[in-house]
Amino acid sequence: MTLEQLVEQIKIKKAVLCVGLDTDLDKIPRHLLEDEDPIFAFNKAIIDATHQYAVAYKPNTAFYEAYGLKGWESLEKTINYLNSEYPECFTIADAKRGDIGNTSSRYARAFFEDLGFDSVTVAPYMGKDSVEPFLAFAEKFTIMLALTSNPGAFDFQTQKIEAEELYKRVLKISKTWEHSERLMYVVGATKAEYLAEIRQIIPEAFLLVPGVGAQGGSVDEVFKYGATPDAGLLINSSRGILYASNQKDFAEAAAAEAQKLQSQMAAHIEKLG
Amino acid sequence: MTLEQLVEQIKIKKAVLCVGLDTDLDKIPRHLLEDEDPIFAFNKAIIDATHQYAVAYKPNTAFYEAYGLKGWESLEKTINYLNSEYPECFTIADAKRGDIGNTSSRYARAFFEDLGFDSVTVAPYMGKDSVEPFLAFAEKFTIMLALTSNPGAFDFQTQKIEAEELYKRVLKISKTWEHSERLMYVVGATKAEYLAEIRQIIPEAFLLVPGVGAQGGSVDEVFKYGATPDAGLLINSSRGILYASNQKDFAEAAAAEAQKLQSQMAAHIEKLG
Repeated sequence: MTLEQLVEQIKIKKAVLCVGLDTDLDKIPRHLLEDEDPIFAFNKAIIDATHQYAVAYKPNTAFYEAYGLKGWESLEKTINYLNSEYPECFTIADAKRGDIGNTSSRYARAFFEDLGFDSVTVAPYMGKDSVEPFLAFAEKFTIMLALTSNPGAFDFQTQKIEAEELYKRVLKISKTWEHSERLMYVVGATKAEYLAEIRQIIPEAFLLVPGVGAQGGSVDEVFKYGATPDAGLLINSSRGILYASNQKDFAEAAAAEAQKLQSQMAAHIEKLG
Repeated sequence: MTLEQLVEQIKIKKAVLCVGLDTDLDKIPRHLLEDEDPIFAFNKAIIDATHQYAVAYKPNTAFYEAYGLKGWESLEKTINYLNSEYPECFTIADAKRGDIGNTSSRYARAFFEDLGFDSVTVAPYMGKDSVEPFLAFAEKFTIMLALTSNPGAFDFQTQKIEAEELYKRVLKISKTWEHSERLMYVVGATKAEYLAEIRQIIPEAFLLVPGVGAQGGSVDEVFKYGATPDAGLLINSSRGILYASNQKDFAEAAAAEAQKLQSQMAAHIEKLG
């Protein structure tokens, strides 16, 4: 998928909603457990129910790996379903990978080619040569952790580096890398006050924003400080949508939650360039 | 496995050798491709051939994920084989994971409980709460990236944080965490000159040292600057052992390479406390 196509979808759907498919067997409706593949059955229903409000889907690979082979199979079915039924949706493998060059190349091939994701999240700690192999793929995007939404973000990310925080260094250095136009960044929504500063450094790059909803971030604040003329945002919600109900109506309940977020977004997107 | 058991094995085998199972279908002997599961067939042969010289095995998960479901199955078979045939060997899932708390918990369960690894590598960038879920598992170890061996290590890790490099901050902060006795650190062997400084901060923790062999590090230097009375080292070699030969004699060739490294180590280990 190209950036233009993503932007077009955002405009068509008036949404920057990314649905996080953090599917948990302990939390999905009981009746689905009788299905041959409860995780996929759940995801399929969630996707069918939310696709008109969402421009992106983001399975966190941890939730699939936790179920071993069967989980991996569910992940494959999920991305295949998205690519065949809703090719207009942007897909994110939330894997937070990052390794030395030849190993990162493996990960990149696994997520981009074999599984067919549009993007993958990566950790910056190992630096340039751990991220560049992901950037080598055309029409694919790499989403690097910058300022995350968890408490531990203050352990390293905000530490001053010669009078500058590490995450700013991550932003400044990474935007000079080859194919940095394929970079996106994870920025936690609970830190909306930082968004203005981040936008001074990376005015155009897309931000993947987790932490809206259960983690307390505000869609309005994120737009206020983080939006670009193209929106430049993907705002994720996982639990708030997936587990809106754990009964047979879970898909409708998920749709309702997704729509609620989408309508908050629409108000902002209509005002964009 | 307990640390005492690992130390005992190091003393029995006189080795701190960790064999990196970065198994690549393009590189293994052609005849194995006729096997039903060439990756496992290759790993099994390598393990059988090297176990008397190695105290640890480290599959890098990227190499398995690259082959999708089949790769994941090969990884399962490999760890099961290690645990049933060579339970005295320490096992490392080189996955470089790290995510928000509940997601890290998933990864921890996947690697420690479902797969049964003794340890897993994690990235520190997201801080304390991304690592602690791994530390909650008794008799399991978490290997955090500290100073890696790739060129990108200089992008962030060595940046000064108020007159101190980030990786030192990683070391100092992480050793105050609950269950930090279950922490190990990745320190690239190509930076042996830093080992003395690292040992001033973490005198006892085990270091997983990649980069010996193909990447140019020296076993002698690593011992000189990095050894503790318990050795405190796991030195990894992947390509140098795995691809010593790509013919039918690959297992014997691997054994020979492993033995060569082991004998270098033995000289140092005999001198320890």
